[in-house]
Amino acid sequence: MRRPNAWEVSVKAYRKKSFPLDKIRRFLEPGPVVLISSAHGGERNLMTCGWHMMLGFEPALVGCFIWDQNHTFDLVRRSRQAVIHLPALDLLDTVIGIGNVHAPELEGDKCDHFGLTPARAKKVKAPLVAECYANFECKLADAKLVNRYSLFVFEVVYAHVAASPKYPTTVHYRGDGVFMISGRNVSRRSRFRPEML
Amino acid sequence: MRRPNAWEVSVKAYRKKSFPLDKIRRFLEPGPVVLISSAHGGERNLMTCGWHMMLGFEPALVGCFIWDQNHTFDLVRRSRQAVIHLPALDLLDTVIGIGNVHAPELEGDKCDHFGLTPARAKKVKAPLVAECYANFECKLADAKLVNRYSLFVFEVVYAHVAASPKYPTTVHYRGDGVFMISGRNVSRRSRFRPEML
Repeated sequence: MRRPNAWEVSVKAYRKKSFPLDKIRRFLEPGPVVLISSAHGGERNLMTCGWHMMLGFEPALVGCFIWDQNHTFDLVRRSRQAVIHLPALDLLDTVIGIGNVHAPELEGDKCDHFGLTPARAKKVKAPLVAECYANFECKLADAKLVNRYSLFVFEVVYAHVAASPKYPTTVHYRGDGVFMISGRNVSRRSRFRPEML
Repeated sequence: MRRPNAWEVSVKAYRKKSFPLDKIRRFLEPGPVVLISSAHGGERNLMTCGWHMMLGFEPALVGCFIWDQNHTFDLVRRSRQAVIHLPALDLLDTVIGIGNVHAPELEGDKCDHFGLTPARAKKVKAPLVAECYANFECKLADAKLVNRYSLFVFEVVYAHVAASPKYPTTVHYRGDGVFMISGRNVSRRSRFRPEML
């Protein structure tokens, strides 16, 4: 399904399936820009995030830096939930748009403005974004690091990942408006000890 | 300078210069695998790390997950210092080797074993690795998250970055022995608000 949006970009909704939580590092550990959706008390928001890291496999923990000036900060702190989305290259300009606008400047919400399709999540109230390659539903596992580091530790409780391709082409931010686009994947499996895989 | 090493890989030492600390996100935010060197009481070690994130610009803060079973964990906790190194693609097999061996199994230290050249740092005792594209000298800024998350918050106090190329080709881990190799860089600077750059 393709449709033009207000942002003048054609975007595609991915057909997704459930994905094992202990394998989501495949997508997040390489360091892509992600989107974070949140919802609370009738409000919802969408932000871009380039500062995140894996913090555990089981449970699947992800730390995300959310600036306290971002509306998402309050929505996540109050709802204790969020969805982390993995956009692929086709959403690059949308990702930049989302990162360069403040919610109060828009008439509708960000999904509407950017022509993105919200979908109902399984375990949280924040919406999935159909046009992202993957959606990771999260519950806030630890807010103790929020005051000092704006660091939210999330537990991923459900993962929706596109049925194909196996690896998406992702965008990785360098600052100064420059993005690195993910390149080829190579396996070096034979060089690993079995217990290190 | 090229020389063969015990790992049968030719490696090159980069000529480096001092780099502004508030710009190091250029290299770390895209999520590459890094090496971490440490030294304490006559011992030194080198480890691979795929779980890290930027946590601040000024001071330049980087959070790194260091597993408590790794010898580096103790060396960093005691010395409160480390160097984060950015290896480029030419060191991929060396990076894998370092990640798949335990220090006690080696006769010499890891730099010797893998044919890497240690160099004296400016502000810390842990060695620089000449063959890495960049070396970020770090002091431990916060150890409060170590017990719960194995997360060391470092302040980068000096950055050595290769004079060229402007952007290195880096390796990004996906698990299962698979690496993503960084691809091209694109500027979308014109789509950013000036205050967002």
